[in-house]
This record gives sequence, structure tokens and C-alpha cells, in this order.
Amino acid sequence: MDTSTYKNIVSFLPPARTLMGPGPSDVHPRILAAMARPTIGHLDPAFVGMMEELKTLLRYAFQTENALTFPVSGPGSVGMETCFVNLVEPGDKIIVCRNGVFGGRMIENVRRCGGVAVVVEDVWGTAVDPGKVEEAFKVHSDTRILAFVHAETSTGAQSDVKTLVDIAHRYGALTIVDAVTSLGGTPLKIDAWDVDAVYSGSQKCLGCTPGLSPVSFGERVVDAIKHRKTPCQSWFMDLDLVLAYWNATQRTYHHTAPINPLYGLHEALVMLKEEGLENAWARHALNHRALKAGIEAMGLSFFVSESQRLPQLNAVTLPQDADDAEVRRRLLADYNLEIGAGLGDMAGKIWRIGLMGYSSREENVLLCLRALEETLAATGAQIKTGVAQAAAKGVYAVK
Amino acid sequence: MDTSTYKNIVSFLPPARTLMGPGPSDVHPRILAAMARPTIGHLDPAFVGMMEELKTLLRYAFQTENALTFPVSGPGSVGMETCFVNLVEPGDKIIVCRNGVFGGRMIENVRRCGGVAVVVEDVWGTAVDPGKVEEAFKVHSDTRILAFVHAETSTGAQSDVKTLVDIAHRYGALTIVDAVTSLGGTPLKIDAWDVDAVYSGSQKCLGCTPGLSPVSFGERVVDAIKHRKTPCQSWFMDLDLVLAYWNATQRTYHHTAPINPLYGLHEALVMLKEEGLENAWARHALNHRALKAGIEAMGLSFFVSESQRLPQLNAVTLPQDADDAEVRRRLLADYNLEIGAGLGDMAGKIWRIGLMGYSSREENVLLCLRALEETLAATGAQIKTGVAQAAAKGVYAVK
Repeated sequence: MDTSTYKNIVSFLPPARTLMGPGPSDVHPRILAAMARPTIGHLDPAFVGMMEELKTLLRYAFQTENALTFPVSGPGSVGMETCFVNLVEPGDKIIVCRNGVFGGRMIENVRRCGGVAVVVEDVWGTAVDPGKVEEAFKVHSDTRILAFVHAETSTGAQSDVKTLVDIAHRYGALTIVDAVTSLGGTPLKIDAWDVDAVYSGSQKCLGCTPGLSPVSFGERVVDAIKHRKTPCQSWFMDLDLVLAYWNATQRTYHHTAPINPLYGLHEALVMLKEEGLENAWARHALNHRALKAGIEAMGLSFFVSESQRLPQLNAVTLPQDADDAEVRRRLLADYNLEIGAGLGDMAGKIWRIGLMGYSSREENVLLCLRALEETLAATGAQIKTGVAQAAAKGVYAVK
Repeated sequence: MDTSTYKNIVSFLPPARTLMGPGPSDVHPRILAAMARPTIGHLDPAFVGMMEELKTLLRYAFQTENALTFPVSGPGSVGMETCFVNLVEPGDKIIVCRNGVFGGRMIENVRRCGGVAVVVEDVWGTAVDPGKVEEAFKVHSDTRILAFVHAETSTGAQSDVKTLVDIAHRYGALTIVDAVTSLGGTPLKIDAWDVDAVYSGSQKCLGCTPGLSPVSFGERVVDAIKHRKTPCQSWFMDLDLVLAYWNATQRTYHHTAPINPLYGLHEALVMLKEEGLENAWARHALNHRALKAGIEAMGLSFFVSESQRLPQLNAVTLPQDADDAEVRRRLLADYNLEIGAGLGDMAGKIWRIGLMGYSSREENVLLCLRALEETLAATGAQIKTGVAQAAAKGVYAVK
């Protein structure tokens, strides 16, 4: 062993950032405090009681009565894979809509489950086109599942869940919806929209730390899982096993739950309940309008058209002569401010400014506008200065 | 929505327990404090630096120079599945040793990857028999992998890693070792013993909160993954993708890392480094000897024979007339003390007393002996009273 490398490592003290990228978002001190509460056993009656509360609070957040609503013990990607490995069997035909990075990841998941992906493509930065989905079902009437992303984190475009789910159901297909960036930030109504399977993440509009993936499954999914012809390829994600664990009446050991992160998610959901879901949606919309006023006053433009735009994830087109990496480096170094780069095909073309969870507040909007204006001006980009703050404050004044 | 159910839920304040079951263990206040530090972005240069330190510290804990050493973003079960989905291809023959619950879980993993499991059975509570493994290789010379558990959490038996790995390598097979309960608590030397793939958990002898699974892979594994004939069936666990993320020189977005739990693991490993790995092993051994002295003074006996016994997980046979559930219920209610029940076939036959991580200290040993003695006596079990504390203290006096 080369002992020189590890011996000098000491406790890690992270810098205090303002997180306005695509997630994680700022985490409220109440949630951080919850993370530090004493660890208890995962079979402790007190912990089991908290798990039941968590499920109840998640049902509220998802607006559903689904019994099978719980947090998967892993990041959003594990929530995604949980949906696909349980619902897709070898040879199944799945229509997947791709209008950004995460639709592409869904296609990967379908293929790794042995399914056949029929891909409906839309231009990045636009919503999924229901007309194209309808056409795909006409050609592929034996499709078992429609999968799409509600809020594309890579572009900031929002698709119409209800319309897409209705099409799938008319053709007898189930639906898998990615709500990683929408849950808690923009209307999402699992029961009213009749969504069959949905997954999300803890670190976006719920404002919790990353690492947990809330999911919810309707009765059609439970029925489909019961009637699988082949076993689920994943042991960890097999819902048959997971459910025996999350079922209160007969708690079977499956895995050791991530106790302290679940404390954090519980606290985040209690805070969402205290604020009220509709109020949280309204707050995300208000801060978007203020940011938009400032961004447009600077002469910058949005990548996504207004009717398809997510309030909580703002894709802003880079202005002329802007140096992507240098601007983001300076924002971090000079303002402790993180905004997101473009992902995949969007790299170097857009910035992604998140207004999610605890990051969705007036002081963050004003800091972001000031830091962006000063940094763009200092690095020689073509923008209008001295007007963004007033434009944003004007929105708050009339709220 | 039935609004009556969620409206009354408030912040969760867990009771302060002493955790002496099979994990999670007590978490040191320094680690809890680290969990509550401000969340930063997963691509922040400060976070990337911490990840590099984490990998270095894990190499120290595993006693390896393996480049591919990192924490999987999920519980130990995800670490296990990561090993199997990357190494097992359909039709591969795998010798799996089963001497407890977790060997059985390995078999499940092999089958779900399309592999053929050749099962070497040993009586629960005993170590894996190298002679049986050698016989299995003689019959199945086309075996690709040998998989076994170092420290069986369900029974407290310890197997001889070096001897078993040597057999596998003589027959040209790779090795997967479950070190969930051994890492940091009992000697584990990945390079000296030439282990190919190993996974562990954060919440056992490292004394961190549950939810992360440290893994390490040698060059033979990297080579095997490069030469796979079929794609890995899991997107989330595909090491090709995960490595592009954990690789410092070219950080490709894969998933959002669980930031705050990683702060906790970093702090746990810094504490391990401060104590020294050999000192941590010695501490686990000492507290085991003290507990053993007290347990035997009470007239109770160990389920596993001395030479195969894990110091950090003590399987104690229930005394005559002991009421399993009632004793554990009283320990929790009257002493805030959690010990573990028997798992699977061992339910109702043994208790599992963990002395792992921060739980491995004198005050825990003495509390456990006192609480167990008083509770067993009060519930009419046949034990000797008034001698356990002195027996344990005698061990500490001569340490």
C-alpha cells in the first residue's frame, strides 16, 4: 500500500453554494437537520411508523390513492429502472417518446429488458407530439406500454400527460411517466390523469437531498406484475419482493433502508404539506415569471416556447459571444452559484437554471440575475445591463 | 383524496436507540453532523475532489490498489447485484456457496442473470468448507466464477477468503466476495488475498448510515467486462457507464450521486483512518471477547464454534424458556436497545448481537449484558444472574 495518499485526508467541509442547476436544489436547513437525527433500525416500530407516514405523504404529493406508493432506495435512475424491469418482458413492444436525454435513457432500459422500443422522436426543446404518438399506436397496435417524460430535465420542455395517457389507454396500453423534475413543482395528478406507473426524484422540486426515488403504481400495474410470464431480471428492484418489505402488515426483510435520507424525505414532504401542494406549484410559477422578466430584459431568450415551458427548469439560450464554461466557472467561483450546462446535444447551446424546491425563492432569482448579468458583461457577451433586477422585482410587486 | 390521513403528520423525531443488531449500527455524532452539511452539486469541483478522496480512503479500508474502488449509490444488495449483472452472462456456470441467507441471495442473482448456479451447501452457522468447493470445481471445471460470503450476517460465521480464492484461481475462475459485515471489523485484504470482486455496506463496521455499498474490482474483472458477449442487463449498474462517472479525468453524467450520505461515508472513513485499520480490527475483537465472557457467564452459548466465529456479529442461542419476541420487545421498550432476531431458518433459535463500528465499545457491551440478564430473568428464562458484568469487565481489565 502506498500510504502517502490517504494519510492526509481530513473531514470534508463543503462550500456553501446556491444550487440553481437541474438538481440537486438547495436543501432547507430543516431537512438537513432531519438527516442528522439518530439512526434507528429499519425494523424498529418507530421507523415502520415513519415509513407509513412517508407513503401517506407521497400519496398526497402524487395526488393518488395508489396503495403502492413508496420511495425506492436509490436515485431517480433506479426508480426508472424499477418501472421498466417490472413491466417489460422479453419481446414486449414499448412506444418510447424521445424529446431529450431522459427519453433516450428509457429506450436503453427497454432494450436491456429484452423489449422492442418503437421510438417517437420530437425535436429537443419541444413537448411530445400527441399526434405522432397516435400514429405510432395505429401502426403498432400490439404495443404494451407507452413511456414518456413529463418534464424533460435536459431541455425544460413539458409534455401533456393526460392527453398522452388517454391515447395509450384507448389502445389498451399501460403508461410509464418520468416525473423526476415535475413532482412538487408543477401540476401532476396521478389519479385524475390515470397514470399507471410514475417515478420521481427527491432532489428536485421536493428540495430533499439526492438518492431516493418516489414511485407510485396503479392497480393495472399490480395486475400486470402478477401475470408476468418471466421472473423480473433484477433482484433488488423486483416489486414482488420490495412490496413485502414496504407492506406494513407483514414486514419481510428485503434490504436495509437508507434510514437517515428517509428522515430527510419525510421532512421535505411535511414541509410540502404545510405549504400546500397548490401553493408550491404557484410559488414555482411566480419565481419563473420573475426570472423570465429579468432574463428577457437582459435580451436573452428561452430555448423552449412559452406554452411548453417548465417553470422550474429554465433553459436559456447562450447569448452571442458567451463563453459557456468560463461563465459557469466564474458564477461558481465569484458567487458560489451553480447553474446547469446543456446536456447531450444541448451542450454549449443552453444553460439550465433550476428554480426547484427551496431554490425557488425570490433571493435566488435576484442573485442569479445579478450574477449572470455581471459575469456576462465582464466576459464580453452581448447583453443589456442595468434592467434585469427591476424587471424581476416588478413581477414580485404585483404578485 | 381522503385529506384526513396526511394532514396530521408532523416532523419525525426518532427515539435514541442503542443499535446492537445486524446493522445499522450506532452512528457516531461526527458522521451524523457530516450528513447535515450543505448539499452541493454532484459535478461541483469540490464534490469531485471529495469523491477522489473517498475512493482513496476505500482503497485503504479494502487494502487494495484497485483503481475501480468506489461506493455504489444504493444499499449492499445493489452492490451485490452490481457484481453479478456485470460478471455473469447467460449460460455461465457459477459455484455459489450457501451457508446462510446471503449465499441464497447470491443464487437468486445468478439465476436472474441467466447463469447456472452450482450450489455448495454448508450447515448454517458453519464456515464454507474448502474441500466441498474443490470437489465442485473438479466436477464443474467449466465454472467461470466462485461466489461466497466472507462474514455471514445471518449466522455470524466467518469463511476463509484466501483459501477459497486460491482454489477458484487454480481452476481459472473469478471470485465474488460478500464483505458486507466484515469490512472495517475483521481482517479483509483484497490485494493480499487476490479477490477479484468484492462488495460491502456502509452501515456495519464502518458505522455509517445505511444506503451505500463500497465495491472494488481487480484487473481481471475489468478485462472480463470489456469482453462481455452480451450487454449488461441493468442500465443503472452497468460498470461501463458507472465508471465513466466515477472516473475523475472525464466525468460523464450518469446519475445524481447521493451527496449527503457520501459526506457521511467520507467522515466514517476518515475516522477509520484516524483509528487505524488494525486498531479497528483489534477493538472489534476485544469487545467480542468481553461480550463472550459475559454471555457465557450467564450460561448462554454461541451458535457458531469459536474458530469460525465473527467477532462483530454474535449469534447467541436462545436459552431454555426464553420468549424471543417478548425479550426483544422489552429490550427496546425498557432499554432502547435493539438486538437482532434470527433470519430465515434461524428465526426463534438465535439472537444476533452486533458489535459493529461505533456500536463496538465497552459501554454497549455492558449495557447489553445488563439488559439481557435483567430481561431474561424477568421473563423466566433459565440463566445465571449476577456474574456477567464482572466477567466482561475482567476482559477489559487485562486488555
